[in-house]
This record gives sequence, C-alpha cells and structure tokens, in this order.
Amino acid sequence: MSNNYGKLYLIPNFLSEDNPDEFIAEMVRKMVHQLRNFVVENEKQGRALIKRLNIQHSQQELQIWLLNEHTPKIEIAGLLKALENEDAGIISDAGLPCIADPGSDLVALAQQKNIEVIALPGASSMMMALMASGFNGQQFSFSGYLPVERPMRIKKIKALEALMYGGLTQLFMETPYRNNHVLEDLLQQCLDQTKLCIGCAVSGNNGWVRTKTVLEWKKHKPDLHKKPCIFILGK
Amino acid sequence: MSNNYGKLYLIPNFLSEDNPDEFIAEMVRKMVHQLRNFVVENEKQGRALIKRLNIQHSQQELQIWLLNEHTPKIEIAGLLKALENEDAGIISDAGLPCIADPGSDLVALAQQKNIEVIALPGASSMMMALMASGFNGQQFSFSGYLPVERPMRIKKIKALEALMYGGLTQLFMETPYRNNHVLEDLLQQCLDQTKLCIGCAVSGNNGWVRTKTVLEWKKHKPDLHKKPCIFILGK
Repeated sequence: MSNNYGKLYLIPNFLSEDNPDEFIAEMVRKMVHQLRNFVVENEKQGRALIKRLNIQHSQQELQIWLLNEHTPKIEIAGLLKALENEDAGIISDAGLPCIADPGSDLVALAQQKNIEVIALPGASSMMMALMASGFNGQQFSFSGYLPVERPMRIKKIKALEALMYGGLTQLFMETPYRNNHVLEDLLQQCLDQTKLCIGCAVSGNNGWVRTKTVLEWKKHKPDLHKKPCIFILGK
Repeated sequence: MSNNYGKLYLIPNFLSEDNPDEFIAEMVRKMVHQLRNFVVENEKQGRALIKRLNIQHSQQELQIWLLNEHTPKIEIAGLLKALENEDAGIISDAGLPCIADPGSDLVALAQQKNIEVIALPGASSMMMALMASGFNGQQFSFSGYLPVERPMRIKKIKALEALMYGGLTQLFMETPYRNNHVLEDLLQQCLDQTKLCIGCAVSGNNGWVRTKTVLEWKKHKPDLHKKPCIFILGK
C-alpha cells in the first residue's frame, strides 16, 4: 500500500456469554495479538472481547476509540488517526462488526483511502439461523429491523411474505423486547401454511432454531421476550 | 424431543487450505467429538474436515452418507436413518453447510419431524466480504449464481444495479472459472460511479476485499480466474 496507514482488522465478537472463548477461532487471536488501537462500539463490550484475544499489550497501553450511533458523522474521518502508521481493529458489541453498525462508515472511508481492510472469520447469528431453517439459502434477503409503528410493520410483513412466495427467503429481526409483538403480528398476518423459522439465542446454551407453519406456531407460541431472535420466512 | 431421532449438527467447513485448523472454533470440536454419523457433500472434503475435528471414533468406525446434487430427491428421506437413535453431522465442501447445497433438503425434513437441528458457528465468505465492503449491511440481498447465458446475465446485472440504487446492497457470486467474464460484464454494464466490492479468496493468505467505483476497476482490472469470489454492488 502506498500510504502511511496501517491495516484495518474487522474483529468478530462472540454472540453469547455462554461460550465466549470457544467461539473465537484461533486464527483471529493469531492475527490481532499485536494490535494496540481499537475502535469499539462500546468500551465495556470492546474490552471484554479484547481480554479474550491474548493481545500482547496491557489494557493500559491500549488506545480505545469509540464509534457508535452517537458518533457525529463528521468525526468519523478523525478515527483514521487510529490507523496512522499503525494497524487497528474494529469491534462491535456482538457478532460481526461493520454489517449493521456505524463501523461500516469507517470501513467505507478506509476503502476510499486504499487502506487494507481485513475481515476476520466469525459466525453470524443470521447465517446460523438460515443454515438450520431448511429454507433455500441460494436466494435470500435481509431487511434488518421491522418498522416500529404497527400499521407500517403489518404492511412490511405482508410485503415480505409476498416476496418470499416469489422465491426470495426473507430474514429480519427486531429489538428483543418487541419480539413477542412481532411474533403476534406474523401469526395474525401471514397465511396459515406459510413457513416461519425462528432462531432464538442461537449459539447460546439454550438457543434453538425451529421451522414450523404459522398454524403450528399458533398452537405453541414460544416466549421470545428479550431474547435475541432472527425471523425467517421461506419455502 | 418425543421421537427416536438424535440431533442433527450442521458443521461449518474451513474456507481455505491455508488455515484449516485455526479457522475452526473450539466450540465446534467440543460439540461434535462424539459423532459417528456424517452426511457429507463429498467424501474427500468431508473426511478432510473430520480429521481436524478430534472425533473420538476412528475413521473406520465412522458412517459416511453422501448428499449432493447427484442425490435423487427421493433418497433424501432415507438419510434420516443416520439419525435413528443417534446424532449426526452435516458437512459441505466449504464454508457453511445447508445454505446453498442440498443439505437444506435434509434439514427441512428434520425440521418437519421435530428433530433438533443445531447450527454450529463458522464464517461465511459472503459475510466476510460484506463486513469489509463498507456498504450498508442493514438491508441486503444475496442472489447466488448469475445466469450462465450472457444476455440473461447482462439483464440480471442491470436489475441488480437498479435494486442497489433503491437501497438494497446486492451480493452474488459466480463459478470461479467464469469470474473474469462476469467482471467484464459488470464493468461494461454498470454506471462508472457505481461502487463494486470484490472479495477474492477471503480468509486465504492472499485474499483481499476491495471496494472501488466501476471507473477505478476499469483502470486496474484484477485477474480473478479460478479464484473464489464474492461480488457486491452497494452504496
């Protein structure tokens, strides 16, 4: 690279408190042990992962930079300082960084500046649920969070069901404390024969991924309150 | 579970020959070491992974069942035998099983029969490329392989570009020996300012993920022949 920047490593975080150390591939530890600069979504979760990465520097020697939804867009370019003549790592609160968090803005800047961006291997709860759903994974769409307002959410659910019958498996999620409301809406709005997969706390000790028809779910409604869930409509 | 079936473990395979052991999370080894029955896409790649999983049985004691694109649909139900009173694992040739391979048909059957399906954590080259692209990962679509015939492929590329400008990041792939042709089509058909991310042999020692405009890629065309690639159009 013909610039004065180091490399930017994207470091997956663990998904469950049940198995943090075993969840991280050895390759990740090997590739990041020399890092001193970290851009984290929140300091607490960032340091919790850093402690498990066998970093050769003490916690006091580390430089921690914050990047989350409260970071003004205009300050993101300033974070490139973390990369001047040195490598840095990005860590999000859980799972893969820079997919659904502001880390992607820093990555976009890094790509523009020809900084080498290195994604490290780690699991995604979305993909774990998709694997175990039994649905077609050759064609799928992820829509992030559903709209908060109920009329909009209902409209969105109907649109996703139609797209699914068109052949595109549909993944989405919800903030954990609204999961039961979303499940209720799904069971009310979708056809009885529509297949719904729920991935609940996947990768945790009590996690599960189950695919049933809407009619079957209506008979045995699980309690999803405050548990991280992935919802999938598919064939 | 109120049936006579064991559990079905979905075991991610490594993505590159460069780092097979370090790529597999310890959690995977811990959860599958007692397995004796394996459903594999191909015996060679399946056994290559099994050797790295510290299975407590010798290779001779293992029961290996094949499930790939040559397996008649009607024979898939017969594979449930692998699960009678015993746990079994599914392994695909590379990366996550049961996303884009016939393993998902067996998983679908297992879900119908209330067999417990357990997805184990592992990395997806698609998600690694998306992380490092700098694109919006809150809304994205994966379209699998592009059409083989050129007029259809060109039509598809234009449709994907339009969907991307509508706000949905677009991921797709190609069989490695056609990668250069697809790149050529992308550079010819997409707007000069459209951003294209290429993830080439991600997770391999010489892998890379780079985002550039179509115009920039036109000036420095990489050779992608026979290298596993992920293509992403995004904003």
